Amino acid sequence: MTKDDSSPSDRITVRRMPDRASYDPDTVASILDEGLLAHVGLVAAEGPVVIPMIYGRDDQTLYLHGSPASRLLREGRDTQLCVTVSILDGLVVARSLMHHSMNYRSVVLMGRASLVEDFDEKSRALDLISDHVIPGRVAGTRPHLEKEVKGTLVLSMPLNEASSKVRTGQPIDDDEDYSLDTWAGVLPLGIAVGEPIPDPLLKDGISTPEHITQWSR
Amino acid sequence: MTKDDSSPSDRITVRRMPDRASYDPDTVASILDEGLLAHVGLVAAEGPVVIPMIYGRDDQTLYLHGSPASRLLREGRDTQLCVTVSILDGLVVARSLMHHSMNYRSVVLMGRASLVEDFDEKSRALDLISDHVIPGRVAGTRPHLEKEVKGTLVLSMPLNEASSKVRTGQPIDDDEDYSLDTWAGVLPLGIAVGEPIPDPLLKDGISTPEHITQWSR
Repeated sequence: MTKDDSSPSDRITVRRMPDRASYDPDTVASILDEGLLAHVGLVAAEGPVVIPMIYGRDDQTLYLHGSPASRLLREGRDTQLCVTVSILDGLVVARSLMHHSMNYRSVVLMGRASLVEDFDEKSRALDLISDHVIPGRVAGTRPHLEKEVKGTLVLSMPLNEASSKVRTGQPIDDDEDYSLDTWAGVLPLGIAVGEPIPDPLLKDGISTPEHITQWSR
Repeated sequence: MTKDDSSPSDRITVRRMPDRASYDPDTVASILDEGLLAHVGLVAAEGPVVIPMIYGRDDQTLYLHGSPASRLLREGRDTQLCVTVSILDGLVVARSLMHHSMNYRSVVLMGRASLVEDFDEKSRALDLISDHVIPGRVAGTRPHLEKEVKGTLVLSMPLNEASSKVRTGQPIDDDEDYSLDTWAGVLPLGIAVGEPIPDPLLKDGISTPEHITQWSR
């Protein structure tokens, strides 16, 4: 970005419902930290491609990873990416179909992804991605082997061109519809966590660790 | 597509983990019907843009809608779009960080979106989108006003260039890691539904309808 950090770039500026937008780095970070899946868009030879991926964050850097055979990672290095993370918090049920909405938190990040080549940064980025999905998992798992780190592609993206958007609360209906006998309100949604299913090939006597039994989002 | 319907186009063919891929229209339709959010990618002047949107399906057509002021809908008509829908079914916890994965179902749809101009098709598409998010909601809400239909943009996309990808089951670890004392298994995830929160402006005596109290995904 050529602009100073306090003002969003033109392309990242939210135009629809700008009152729901924020460019505050802490808000962006908190949404990224709670999200699980990023939808990553790039321009391939055949047109736009959007792929679900996991990710990790280190301060003002986002990391993506994948196999060297992945189309996105092959084409995505040194290419403009758009990384969108959406968290659905509820269905907003209005008195007219037109005013139905969703309560959500989302981040849109634009920028150029760079290939991470330094072994230590790569290894650390892979840990950050694992601990982003399951906090505490890295400490509960053997260290990476050198060949595993070398056999994985890692991309980094700066978080300096990101917008967040948040909707909360009840529906906003047209004035004349408030007299209708139609139910309106919010149906809260979140992530349901089931009972952990141990791998049938698990050795005897291994109990389920707390970072699994206590996992929540 | 110039190819016959039984063979996927080159650009939609899944290259990573092709054994997880299917081009079966019924599989694609069932994933689209269960998903809630689509992440829609297009190529804008400033690069790739990915926006979360809701959608509806009618047989082999996907509908998107939004305000005439929406950037995506403004730029997305007569443009190539990539529409990706992902459902997260669980975290796959392996004995090495490298083999951690997710159980998921996803659809990637590519194609050109067309503006729906016919009033009746538009009105029907808006109903399909509403009933996709909350089945039964259309019957419980007043009909669209003419100005509401006219004031909304609706895009349609054929479903003939779509791939689905599904992962289920336990982690696949490297042979030598099965002897580790590391827990492995699956943590099932789904959508948690909270208690409906009535709008404080609701008229007295309106009970919460079954399509809200029974909503699930």
